[in-house]
Amino acid sequence: MSNDALTPTPDHKFTFGLWTVGNRGRDPFGDAVRPTLSPIDAVRMLAEVGAMGVNLHDNDLVPIDATPSERDQIVREFKRACDDHNIKVPMATVNLFYDPVFRDGAFTANDGNVRAYALQKTMKAMELGAELGAKVFVLWGGREGVETDACRRPTDAIKRFREALNRLCEFSERQNFNYRFALEAKPNEPRADIYFPTTGAYLGFIATLDRPDLVGVNPEVAHEHMAGLNMMHAVAQAWEAGKLFHIDLNDQIPGRYDQDLRFGSANPKAAFWLVKFLEDVGYSGSRHFDAHAYRTEDYDGVKEFAKGCMRTYLILKEKAAQWNADSEIQQIISEIDSTDVPTGDLLNRAIDRTSLSTKGLNYERLDQLTMDILFGVR
Amino acid sequence: MSNDALTPTPDHKFTFGLWTVGNRGRDPFGDAVRPTLSPIDAVRMLAEVGAMGVNLHDNDLVPIDATPSERDQIVREFKRACDDHNIKVPMATVNLFYDPVFRDGAFTANDGNVRAYALQKTMKAMELGAELGAKVFVLWGGREGVETDACRRPTDAIKRFREALNRLCEFSERQNFNYRFALEAKPNEPRADIYFPTTGAYLGFIATLDRPDLVGVNPEVAHEHMAGLNMMHAVAQAWEAGKLFHIDLNDQIPGRYDQDLRFGSANPKAAFWLVKFLEDVGYSGSRHFDAHAYRTEDYDGVKEFAKGCMRTYLILKEKAAQWNADSEIQQIISEIDSTDVPTGDLLNRAIDRTSLSTKGLNYERLDQLTMDILFGVR
Amino acid sequence: MSNDALTPTPDHKFTFGLWTVGNRGRDPFGDAVRPTLSPIDAVRMLAEVGAMGVNLHDNDLVPIDATPSERDQIVREFKRACDDHNIKVPMATVNLFYDPVFRDGAFTANDGNVRAYALQKTMKAMELGAELGAKVFVLWGGREGVETDACRRPTDAIKRFREALNRLCEFSERQNFNYRFALEAKPNEPRADIYFPTTGAYLGFIATLDRPDLVGVNPEVAHEHMAGLNMMHAVAQAWEAGKLFHIDLNDQIPGRYDQDLRFGSANPKAAFWLVKFLEDVGYSGSRHFDAHAYRTEDYDGVKEFAKGCMRTYLILKEKAAQWNADSEIQQIISEIDSTDVPTGDLLNRAIDRTSLSTKGLNYERLDQLTMDILFGVR
Amino acid sequence: MSNDALTPTPDHKFTFGLWTVGNRGRDPFGDAVRPTLSPIDAVRMLAEVGAMGVNLHDNDLVPIDATPSERDQIVREFKRACDDHNIKVPMATVNLFYDPVFRDGAFTANDGNVRAYALQKTMKAMELGAELGAKVFVLWGGREGVETDACRRPTDAIKRFREALNRLCEFSERQNFNYRFALEAKPNEPRADIYFPTTGAYLGFIATLDRPDLVGVNPEVAHEHMAGLNMMHAVAQAWEAGKLFHIDLNDQIPGRYDQDLRFGSANPKAAFWLVKFLEDVGYSGSRHFDAHAYRTEDYDGVKEFAKGCMRTYLILKEKAAQWNADSEIQQIISEIDSTDVPTGDLLNRAIDRTSLSTKGLNYERLDQLTMDILFGVR
Repeated sequence: MSNDALTPTPDHKFTFGLWTVGNRGRDPFGDAVRPTLSPIDAVRMLAEVGAMGVNLHDNDLVPIDATPSERDQIVREFKRACDDHNIKVPMATVNLFYDPVFRDGAFTANDGNVRAYALQKTMKAMELGAELGAKVFVLWGGREGVETDACRRPTDAIKRFREALNRLCEFSERQNFNYRFALEAKPNEPRADIYFPTTGAYLGFIATLDRPDLVGVNPEVAHEHMAGLNMMHAVAQAWEAGKLFHIDLNDQIPGRYDQDLRFGSANPKAAFWLVKFLEDVGYSGSRHFDAHAYRTEDYDGVKEFAKGCMRTYLILKEKAAQWNADSEIQQIISEIDSTDVPTGDLLNRAIDRTSLSTKGLNYERLDQLTMDILFGVR
Repeated sequence: MSNDALTPTPDHKFTFGLWTVGNRGRDPFGDAVRPTLSPIDAVRMLAEVGAMGVNLHDNDLVPIDATPSERDQIVREFKRACDDHNIKVPMATVNLFYDPVFRDGAFTANDGNVRAYALQKTMKAMELGAELGAKVFVLWGGREGVETDACRRPTDAIKRFREALNRLCEFSERQNFNYRFALEAKPNEPRADIYFPTTGAYLGFIATLDRPDLVGVNPEVAHEHMAGLNMMHAVAQAWEAGKLFHIDLNDQIPGRYDQDLRFGSANPKAAFWLVKFLEDVGYSGSRHFDAHAYRTEDYDGVKEFAKGCMRTYLILKEKAAQWNADSEIQQIISEIDSTDVPTGDLLNRAIDRTSLSTKGLNYERLDQLTMDILFGVR
Repeated sequence: MSNDALTPTPDHKFTFGLWTVGNRGRDPFGDAVRPTLSPIDAVRMLAEVGAMGVNLHDNDLVPIDATPSERDQIVREFKRACDDHNIKVPMATVNLFYDPVFRDGAFTANDGNVRAYALQKTMKAMELGAELGAKVFVLWGGREGVETDACRRPTDAIKRFREALNRLCEFSERQNFNYRFALEAKPNEPRADIYFPTTGAYLGFIATLDRPDLVGVNPEVAHEHMAGLNMMHAVAQAWEAGKLFHIDLNDQIPGRYDQDLRFGSANPKAAFWLVKFLEDVGYSGSRHFDAHAYRTEDYDGVKEFAKGCMRTYLILKEKAAQWNADSEIQQIISEIDSTDVPTGDLLNRAIDRTSLSTKGLNYERLDQLTMDILFGVR
Repeated sequence: MSNDALTPTPDHKFTFGLWTVGNRGRDPFGDAVRPTLSPIDAVRMLAEVGAMGVNLHDNDLVPIDATPSERDQIVREFKRACDDHNIKVPMATVNLFYDPVFRDGAFTANDGNVRAYALQKTMKAMELGAELGAKVFVLWGGREGVETDACRRPTDAIKRFREALNRLCEFSERQNFNYRFALEAKPNEPRADIYFPTTGAYLGFIATLDRPDLVGVNPEVAHEHMAGLNMMHAVAQAWEAGKLFHIDLNDQIPGRYDQDLRFGSANPKAAFWLVKFLEDVGYSGSRHFDAHAYRTEDYDGVKEFAKGCMRTYLILKEKAAQWNADSEIQQIISEIDSTDVPTGDLLNRAIDRTSLSTKGLNYERLDQLTMDILFGVR
């Protein structure tokens, strides 16, 4: 594998969130371990490691209580830093989870004034994103859920979420932001149960919106893995429906707290199928890493973390090409009869199920060849 | 709680699958422990315990290799038994998982002839169901998945599944069966990953069909719990979208093999919210139990199992009514401000987020009151 | 059920951690929502709701950087508050997880100076606990784990952990603290994998210590449930081995982040078996609640949370007595042949396995009777 | 990597169970897909692929209802086949789960006659194993558990299990079998909860036996992963305690039914740490594969499956050696201060916790270097 192939450049469309390289290592049982990384230092670091862009929540850049003029100055300086380092802002999002006001949800909160504030905050974040050039707006409803189902009938939550989305689509079009909205599902944490827990649930929801054309999904590896699901299958369903508007790459062992590990570092095989799918179908959006460095690291370690995410992606991309070019693999695949269903009267057609039952399918061999490629021994 | 309220009658619309009371206790590590229960004996047992109906896979009633005349005689006798015992057949389904022919899937198998056979078998099962009066046709794609993603790109599987559904809808309408199809999701087992792993995924898929109006979902408690998801939320999303065509009641601890436990016996609180939702919104379909007795039981134990499923449902229904009538609960709920989002210009509206952040929401109290009702101490 | 039976008194031995009622609702995605509750106010609240005692980590009471004289004053005032409100401190523990110094572990950290600091901090916490009258010292090794197994061979971690325990036992005896140490297992969070992930693992480890007699376990509902395990089974193994030195009561849905929910509120049936076991065997230690209120609550809600934990325990205790006194239940249990294994030459004894295979065991009925008692309808 | 290094020979000590290559693909939802493979054909296949040995349950070889003379003839022919193909039988075990007699457990069943039968069957299986030269006797208590805790107090189950183990140890010594017993834990399936759910739980139990020296553990990848635990950590604890008497290699995604996948095929990174540990510490026992081929395979596929298990082990062994020899990795490890805890008075020693908190630990880099080796790009 050539060094060139493994050296990230902006053409690879790698992006990181400000909140990822800027993560300070705070967790439920421990304090921050790293000092604050300024957005401008983050931009510098991302340029240095070869990323194309940086994404952000409103409050990653602008404090929630900044005055308009403070806000404008911060944005001006940040844009300049981005320009100086040739870093794009392809995606923006809004923080609807950190502040106590959202403790019972944002778009689905029982208090209509909280819902109003969430909408207002989102509209302002959309303005901010548009100002920075973002074309995709991600919505992660981290607080849209419950600890007890006593508090709200979930159909009310769904209706409120729909009303919010419809308003935001309308606002985006009216302001000529022309965002594509990407909804990000997660099954739980920080709420006991979050509404729309999987990418699939959002695909179902989108069909019920006023403007389904403007809304897609942002599947995240960790979030699908938390529910023990196959991330690549979720991505494939979204892609096939024309709804893969963004993607969050990281890693996660199933059935645990949200780990946000370095891409490919928990289950490299799952990561391989995912990269192969994205490359095979020609996904052209950002390869966004929503992960963070271990809490044991200083900012040198954070840089290693960022480089590792991209390096693993590029390694797996090369391996995907090798897989596609492997003659034994292609031979096995061609032997798997994928003829069409015969035409004509199916109901009365004679089909010999027994003869269809005996053929060995060679999938163990196919999978071991995949392992050999993954291990670099083929 | 009156005995009457807890005595099942056909009006309660309880149904069981032939395969549930007929389950022989075979599992991956053990042989059958109960003798075969004939369909006719199953009907008799269900009538005796107060069920409204029985549902079936084609091969629960008719062996896969029965001749047409054998088939007709079996069906004739079964209908007579149903009539004699006033047992309905509201739902039918097809077994696309037991026979080795389906080892690589049915509608999504790589071999077009397997897909053809799956379609043919389904059409015949639809004929059978129609003959028995079924109005709902459930499809559980138990083998539609993979052990290795090397074998098939999932977008191909999705396209094949769609093609199958479109054909079956067309067949149903052409034959005047007028079925409502209910798709049943499951994340894994018997395949490592099953396509469309959650109810949400099917809701997304339905929107892409030729006849979305004919197709809904059949959420199952155990299957959502396997992925650690909130079953009631899945049901609510389906209901709100007009897609709750059927439901499978049982129980399951998250993150395990498919347990199919007696309804409400693993997590009675989750079962409470589910029953409360179904009763509150006026769900009018079958309350179908897709569960089976422990392997320690003989057929007396199976009968206890069946009675327990219904009894727990009825207990929880009564408790739901008590919850709705509880004045302290209603007082708390009324205090939760659920005013609408204010009208007018949201973007520039002054909203004091700090004052919105301090109000205690009394959800701990609300949930403990729920527990008190559940425990029968209120 | 009488009101008296459900009213907590110190005789019930309910305890809470300072960190539980004092939890401020901070989580990985959100800020604190409640103001600081002073230890003295916590004591007052616990007395008011009927608890027997309060437990604490060193830094719940004394800031990590307090001077000796500040420390002494804080302790003096706290003791006075405890005395004034008749609140005991039966258990103490040490915080080896919050400060960045422990980011790579405490007793198992690679840096010997960190291990030294962890030991020193623990010895001082033991002094503090002894001063407050604590007889049990809990050790939860929250940071004793890894994100990558590259950093340390786990056998080194085990040896270091053993060395620490041996030193602490020796210190406890030398100082005449005469603590019983209770080791608390957890599978993951905040580390990707924590060493000694289950109560069972600690039971194995204890046997390898210099003073196994001084060391037992502190099983926690949430921690066993996170691994999908049966908490009551873990408690039973510890009890049977004479090692149940303490217990942490709360609740948790399996396969998720650490939820620390109100006792019995996630799975009341699992809670029932646990309470029944503790009461049946005559467990005489504290019933300690290691849980916290929802983030939606103010301190009135926290009080409701604390009351709910105890109320549910007492409800389940009453139900356990009812279960034991139920004649049908006792009849079924007496019919379950629990005769001893026959004496004499087993190898050549004629045993008719077929006749042993056919008896129905009536466990479905037995479990449904349990549900009836749980629901209060029997 | 040389072909030689990746070619399995008996010196590598690879073993398979008769039940693994002989697995017919039966699962909870489907029938067998492969014809019966005779034990003698299995031996031939294992010799052909380079295995050292074959392990077996009594009934893998001898039907449960064979007469003594049938049994003797079967054993004679099997021994001859083993000799002819230079295949050893290093481990034997007993099937205490398939027959309905064990539906409520074997050593822990409520019926004393069932317990007697289980003991007798085990003693006979021990005779069989001894006759075949086995030195390790594995016990997997697959049915030792419950669906409802109403049926038995778990302390009774523990006592019964201990009594059984004590008898079997005594029998083994008296008969001069001199077995080392290896206890195999599993959290669930086929029972809802199995007693001693993890390797750790068995380590705790062993300490309470009459002859702890004769009893160790047999950790299985899939079983630890089912509970979301780190297999290598479980193995390390067993090894460090001198209790790693056997090991079961396969693979498994956490939080699912028992998958028994080809070794290393679900999570190659976890497999890498495991192989590295076994090789680094000099584990000298069998590398036993307790896995089976996908249900899509014929016996050619089964052979590929068996070859894949061994190949992946050997690949990972080579990579472990490469990791150990990598100078950058060793440099990082040497920089991780692993000095001993300072000697002297720890309690009063001045330790500057702040300076200990700031050092970056370079674990992200270390882990990415591991990934590079795993991917074969270094």
